[in-house]
Amino acid sequence: MDTKIDAKIKFLLEADKMKSVFRRNVLLDRSRRENDAEHSWHLALCAMLFEEYAAQKVDMLRVLKMAILHDIIEIYAGDTFAYDAKANEDKKEREKLAADKIFGMLPKDCAEEFRSLFEEFDEAKTPDAVFANCMDRVQAFIGNYYSDGHTWVMGDVTREQILSRVGITEKAVPALWQTISSMIDDGIKKGYIK
Amino acid sequence: MDTKIDAKIKFLLEADKMKSVFRRNVLLDRSRRENDAEHSWHLALCAMLFEEYAAQKVDMLRVLKMAILHDIIEIYAGDTFAYDAKANEDKKEREKLAADKIFGMLPKDCAEEFRSLFEEFDEAKTPDAVFANCMDRVQAFIGNYYSDGHTWVMGDVTREQILSRVGITEKAVPALWQTISSMIDDGIKKGYIK
Repeated sequence: MDTKIDAKIKFLLEADKMKSVFRRNVLLDRSRRENDAEHSWHLALCAMLFEEYAAQKVDMLRVLKMAILHDIIEIYAGDTFAYDAKANEDKKEREKLAADKIFGMLPKDCAEEFRSLFEEFDEAKTPDAVFANCMDRVQAFIGNYYSDGHTWVMGDVTREQILSRVGITEKAVPALWQTISSMIDDGIKKGYIK
Repeated sequence: MDTKIDAKIKFLLEADKMKSVFRRNVLLDRSRRENDAEHSWHLALCAMLFEEYAAQKVDMLRVLKMAILHDIIEIYAGDTFAYDAKANEDKKEREKLAADKIFGMLPKDCAEEFRSLFEEFDEAKTPDAVFANCMDRVQAFIGNYYSDGHTWVMGDVTREQILSRVGITEKAVPALWQTISSMIDDGIKKGYIK
């Protein structure tokens, strides 16, 4: 068996574990928590829908690749709840070790491409990464709003905390900000957000 | 609220149902069946891994968009087991009605782009669609092989039926065919495939 192909198949099999890394939020029908594989797919779809509103022109191939790869390190590092300050303290270190392990499974050229996209997403500085990060947060935000603020209520989340996550939309996808902003106001009225 | 943005958010919310459309195959840990959202994500990753072996040069942005969209009609049409001849008889008609309904939720320009990508994938004639279809089948094939032929054993699947699905790899991704072909031979030896 070709060793490069063999390594890629092993990576593909390891990636199956993304389907068992559960996030804090629930599906819209509240039946269970969402997992990382589903979230990554939904985020990619979200990016396809809102690309036309991105403030800076983005390279959608790179954005979609980031969407598909951005959480894969959570197979080893676990999902870190965005509003858990303590868990976020050692997040960087945990995720670096996880990235070494998961991307280390791949042939060198592919490992470099995937890791570089993951790190670019994580740094959130380039237009592609800013848009991908915005979509990552918007996908979660919309899901939370339409499940009666499930995750926000559970985490006693404040308006300031929400803004620290989804406030990026104001500059990154301005046309969408009006909608997000109204949903925040409404979420406060309804008691979803403190 | 902007009506185009409103329509896109409604579509994004409806798409959440992909997480509850279950396929025949199981996760590698056998804990449960895989759903369409997870499968679409895993297929997109599979395409990213094997792009370099595609026989004809592909436009990966279009391939990834097809991967993300190709099963969304199953929210209404349901998953049709590839080896169920009877269920496949009215598959086209069920899926056409489902496509009218799901893509009809979107603003015109976006609906046209998404439907056109879905139909191109479904016809499997262009190099992008052939590669995306091949990856769709390879993702399922590898999962089945590494779960002791779970779905094949359940469906009494023969070598000819497997070839009718995954045989496309020989021309579409020749370097991968050697591996797939060995796995078919081994699957027969192990009794996963008739």
